[in-house]
Amino acid sequence: MLRTHTCGELRMKNVTETVTISGWVQGVRDKGSLLWIDLRDRYGITQITIETENAAKEIIEAARTLGREYVISVTGKVAERYSKSDKIATGDIEIYPDNITILNAALTPPFTIEDETDGGDDIRMKYRYLDLRRNPVRKNLELRHRMAIETRNYLDSLNFLEVETPVLIKSTPEGARDFVVPSRMNQGEFYALPQSPQTFKQLLMIGGFDRYYQIVKCFRDEDLRADRQPEFTQIDCEMAFVEQEDILQTFEGLVCHLFKTVKGIDIPALTRMTYADAMKFYGNDKPDIRFEMKFVELNSVVKGKDFKVFNDAQLVVGICAKGAAEYSRKQLDELTEYVKRPQIGATGLVYARYNADGTIKSSVDKFYNEEDLKKWAQTFDAKPGDLMLILAGETNKTRKALSELRLEMGTRLGLRDKNTFACHWVIDFPLLEWSEETSRFHAMHHPFTSPKPEDIELIDSAPGEVRANAYDMVINGVEVGGGSIRIFNKQLQSRMFDLLGFTKEEAQAQFGFLMNAFEFGAPPHGGLAFGFDRLCSLFGGAEVIRDFIAFPKNNSGRDVMIDSPSPIAQAQLDELGIGVKKP
Amino acid sequence: MLRTHTCGELRMKNVTETVTISGWVQGVRDKGSLLWIDLRDRYGITQITIETENAAKEIIEAARTLGREYVISVTGKVAERYSKSDKIATGDIEIYPDNITILNAALTPPFTIEDETDGGDDIRMKYRYLDLRRNPVRKNLELRHRMAIETRNYLDSLNFLEVETPVLIKSTPEGARDFVVPSRMNQGEFYALPQSPQTFKQLLMIGGFDRYYQIVKCFRDEDLRADRQPEFTQIDCEMAFVEQEDILQTFEGLVCHLFKTVKGIDIPALTRMTYADAMKFYGNDKPDIRFEMKFVELNSVVKGKDFKVFNDAQLVVGICAKGAAEYSRKQLDELTEYVKRPQIGATGLVYARYNADGTIKSSVDKFYNEEDLKKWAQTFDAKPGDLMLILAGETNKTRKALSELRLEMGTRLGLRDKNTFACHWVIDFPLLEWSEETSRFHAMHHPFTSPKPEDIELIDSAPGEVRANAYDMVINGVEVGGGSIRIFNKQLQSRMFDLLGFTKEEAQAQFGFLMNAFEFGAPPHGGLAFGFDRLCSLFGGAEVIRDFIAFPKNNSGRDVMIDSPSPIAQAQLDELGIGVKKP
Repeated sequence: MLRTHTCGELRMKNVTETVTISGWVQGVRDKGSLLWIDLRDRYGITQITIETENAAKEIIEAARTLGREYVISVTGKVAERYSKSDKIATGDIEIYPDNITILNAALTPPFTIEDETDGGDDIRMKYRYLDLRRNPVRKNLELRHRMAIETRNYLDSLNFLEVETPVLIKSTPEGARDFVVPSRMNQGEFYALPQSPQTFKQLLMIGGFDRYYQIVKCFRDEDLRADRQPEFTQIDCEMAFVEQEDILQTFEGLVCHLFKTVKGIDIPALTRMTYADAMKFYGNDKPDIRFEMKFVELNSVVKGKDFKVFNDAQLVVGICAKGAAEYSRKQLDELTEYVKRPQIGATGLVYARYNADGTIKSSVDKFYNEEDLKKWAQTFDAKPGDLMLILAGETNKTRKALSELRLEMGTRLGLRDKNTFACHWVIDFPLLEWSEETSRFHAMHHPFTSPKPEDIELIDSAPGEVRANAYDMVINGVEVGGGSIRIFNKQLQSRMFDLLGFTKEEAQAQFGFLMNAFEFGAPPHGGLAFGFDRLCSLFGGAEVIRDFIAFPKNNSGRDVMIDSPSPIAQAQLDELGIGVKKP
Repeated sequence: MLRTHTCGELRMKNVTETVTISGWVQGVRDKGSLLWIDLRDRYGITQITIETENAAKEIIEAARTLGREYVISVTGKVAERYSKSDKIATGDIEIYPDNITILNAALTPPFTIEDETDGGDDIRMKYRYLDLRRNPVRKNLELRHRMAIETRNYLDSLNFLEVETPVLIKSTPEGARDFVVPSRMNQGEFYALPQSPQTFKQLLMIGGFDRYYQIVKCFRDEDLRADRQPEFTQIDCEMAFVEQEDILQTFEGLVCHLFKTVKGIDIPALTRMTYADAMKFYGNDKPDIRFEMKFVELNSVVKGKDFKVFNDAQLVVGICAKGAAEYSRKQLDELTEYVKRPQIGATGLVYARYNADGTIKSSVDKFYNEEDLKKWAQTFDAKPGDLMLILAGETNKTRKALSELRLEMGTRLGLRDKNTFACHWVIDFPLLEWSEETSRFHAMHHPFTSPKPEDIELIDSAPGEVRANAYDMVINGVEVGGGSIRIFNKQLQSRMFDLLGFTKEEAQAQFGFLMNAFEFGAPPHGGLAFGFDRLCSLFGGAEVIRDFIAFPKNNSGRDVMIDSPSPIAQAQLDELGIGVKKP
């Protein structure tokens, strides 16, 4: 090793030892009579001190040629510092060098290698290897490593087997768009990269593997957003001979284990909420329950006066923001503007302040008297000092808009601390979702999800009302994982494909292998998958998953560091039997 | 859970308990008054016993409808068996059922679900989910899981970080053929799937990650052999601030840890052999050293007589097969035929039997008298009872042929027990290899491998003689891993690309990002990668890696179970801006 110790481990007990450390020059301070070098590696920073009066000439010269990010190796004696620092773990000691070897010089980096860097996103992505030297980025990836280790520890202890499923699989049009890979040995044919190992994990259950998991890359060729990458990682799990309750218990256990071992936090048992309640009380299938502020429906309270907006609305619904009655006119106007933004889509906002003196003032005083407003307050369970915010319109749209407003108020009132974690399950999702665009049902989860046995009789008469044995885990308003109990019967699976608009031939061509497998002794099974990138970012208290991926792609799907994708040679195209169309 | 216990865990202590187990019907034996069902899951087999005189009618009826591989759930009382079996772990008990629920019926499987099945390769691949139910296949994948867990335990304990590198990267023509992925968002451009994460792990070292590993899928679009798959898995590792010795120690430690924890075997410290010695003494850069039988060179002993074959040969070289002097003429003819096969390519085989009575008889007695042969025996250190086998010709070809003969003799003499493990390092590989086909040097390991510092002055004058800081780990004649200390200097890397026939422009276009990174403070680093599929198959005592992969592809790169690759829709091609050429 080109070192005896790392830059993070020397302490008082090492004083008088001769050591060698290697790393990157964080900085050099030259005071003439004294020269300090801060040497950095993954483990910490150690100070090298040179007294120019006593030090050898070569050492001083070497030190004075150093620039930021030079890679050097230093041998010397550990000494107690005259003035200790409690800012770094090695702050009690320093090294007096006997030798400094420059292992590699460095050009001046295009941005500073500091916790708070001066580099913008684009330049940091191009020089990702330099960005990775920064503590916050490295710590994110260390957290990710720890999360993976602890995930495996937990699942291994429960007899789950990690099994690698193939990356070169088959393209299926249901779901998102596939990345495809032309086959050279079977020209004109293509592999697809998996959007998830769904069918393979089901086949493993049919193969008697009983409990499977995998931390696995998945791929979706979709237009990208800040929190989406064309390749992403899942903790993918499946269990046989289980019911929904077993899955919820098992993976609630996983998340508790991760919070405990990775963050030292004991989280309480997860609460459960039906999809119907999530929509009714939060307007959202992944409610952030770090704070209450539940929806209160007001149809029966507000209708029948002269206020046409409310009278005509399918739903009048509001939230009560505790202690926000003193919001200024300006703040209320901001909120109104907020809900009227096209992404939110409300036509207006009605508010009512429950003042500290017990009076209530609303933006619709013209239509509602003090007595009416008291009734509102009662319905909201509002207290003096609270602010009632009300939207009205078509049910689904209004709920969606109010959900955004609720989150915005949560943020404004400081109720969404990223170091507080509220985890819960949303259950009883609908099996199917009607798409106006394609005029057919789509699978809300995926085509392999099992309807609830008690709803199965509705599958012909009212398919849209059938609930599924499907569940999502939500942490702080983020869906971190989801899954379902699967269909394991050929007839039911076939009926499901019918409902989704597959012809018999299409279903057979694409999923025949799975339906055939159901005929050879398929056990009841179910599972779920966690979005690992997102789970890590949540544990790390960050919003974008890109910060938790070593080499992410930008929003055009490009890796700007290696400059990929890129054209390939004509010979490669010829071997594959494909051509690129001229634009 | 649809069970209280697995089919592998009930023991005498459970007798009188009422339990529920679920699994697959391994078989039903119906003796009229007694009916037995063997119920199987991943964990074992449990016997269900029905006394038809006492049992409820529904139970008897249910039992009599069962076929092989039906999935059932059985609730009943655990009882001590009248005649115990020591063939299965649950052999002391049986269950008297109160209820049998058929969870799923099963068609008769196309082959038997037994350790020794009647199914051929093709049918087992098509119904892989049934093949996975067989104990030997499942045990292979359980071994693989255990290997992965212990690999991570070991590397984690040494501060290695598992970092996921991208799967969608950039195509580079050096090395094997890439699989490519057309980009929809950047039409006319392609990603490539990684043949290894080589450049990314080097960038992680430049990024200060210090110690990296990953158990990762890699991809090569090559024509397939039995032990090659288009997608395969590596244990990929890299360390900064190390010299070759550190890598050898660290990964020798990994393999010792795996043998200890997975197989309960203490293996001795690994010996080391230079590439030059491996070729000289074994004719092979991955010698099987479970047995000795080293090459003995005979030029100085055999030349100068009237035997033209030896006189004209560049090299005369042989092996001494201990105790094989009594090989019959037929056996010797077989060996001669063996070495003359086109794959081996020798023109003939000379042998000399050192008989138990002290006489020596050779196939070239016409040219060599008893005294000459005694000298041969001395050179071979042969004893009465031994058989000397000699080949002659051009040095490299002859060594290669003798290597095959040595392995064949090792096999015939029972010296290659698959439960004996001989692990060693081969070191000091040449940096470059001349290709007659392309009339240029190729990198023996890869273009990022560092020459030995003491040989660097030969790089211009005699590049073919430069040795590299490259090493392979060999177990039982199989190369399980290999790596090198890397170049970390832009000028040297650039010189290396020159030698490999890259123009400056090509080198910059393909690897510019890496060479640029070298200028921003690259530390000395090196690493290696193990072929994980192969390592698992070796630990499992098998020869083909396919048995250690859950869903392998066949030799045409097809997954015959899911029928992939397959044609894709025209709409998909259009979106990607590519066309398929008509054959």
